[in-house]
Amino acid sequence: MNSSASKVIKHREFRWEGIEVKAYKSDGAPYKDVTRQTLLGEGPGEESLNFVTRYFEIQPGGYSTFEVHRHPHAVIVLRGRGEVQLGNRCHAIGPFDVVYVAPETEHQFRASGSEPLGFLCVVDRTRDRPRVVGQDISSSQRESA
Amino acid sequence: MNSSASKVIKHREFRWEGIEVKAYKSDGAPYKDVTRQTLLGEGPGEESLNFVTRYFEIQPGGYSTFEVHRHPHAVIVLRGRGEVQLGNRCHAIGPFDVVYVAPETEHQFRASGSEPLGFLCVVDRTRDRPRVVGQDISSSQRESA
Repeated sequence: MNSSASKVIKHREFRWEGIEVKAYKSDGAPYKDVTRQTLLGEGPGEESLNFVTRYFEIQPGGYSTFEVHRHPHAVIVLRGRGEVQLGNRCHAIGPFDVVYVAPETEHQFRASGSEPLGFLCVVDRTRDRPRVVGQDISSSQRESA
Repeated sequence: MNSSASKVIKHREFRWEGIEVKAYKSDGAPYKDVTRQTLLGEGPGEESLNFVTRYFEIQPGGYSTFEVHRHPHAVIVLRGRGEVQLGNRCHAIGPFDVVYVAPETEHQFRASGSEPLGFLCVVDRTRDRPRVVGQDISSSQRESA
């Protein structure tokens, strides 16, 4: 038996005990009103996890970066309503809907309705960097400077 | 752009479009009133996912197998109340609580309260087989025969 690293992280109103609410990104890519909480995969004792479980929250009217990368996403919506763009198609999403973002699919999440859109997003621990769609990185960095 | 494999799987009352509700196990290990739905990681076009996202549901009074394995679990409760045993400690769990089951931790989920306990459990696609705690496999297989 080895239960030293095992644990329960208690939830309360889409915040988790000891988990920091962070800025969604810091690379200058365009987005609006998004936060990130890393629930599992980067904490002490969690080195054996080969994937990272994050929770993103987008305020009404907000959106994630329209981006693309090689690594896939497994997404499960926990709260709110919105839409996800997958390539050139848009899909309405709500609680407990599952989204699979396959490699190299351009994608963006947007919150509609009156409450935040919150979703889990699981990714490989080791993964490639996202590229912004419709904009070269250097120009987006200039905009945020 | 490659959006052919990307998709939304719509949810309705803890069932998902096109996802089969399966028996939790078929190896004869002891459990009670548990079902399994594999949401992502084993379907066509999902080969690039290195992890599998499953949803388990335990009816009131039911429990998962008390077991142990080398691969870790990342668990997020979606509905109901219950408890998780991690080694020799028990923890109450409810909606959106997160559970990390570290490698080689003996663990069991149990449903209490009036509604089913439902939770996501993410694991590596390639992983070791669970061993039943407090019972050798051959005797449990005899019981189920």
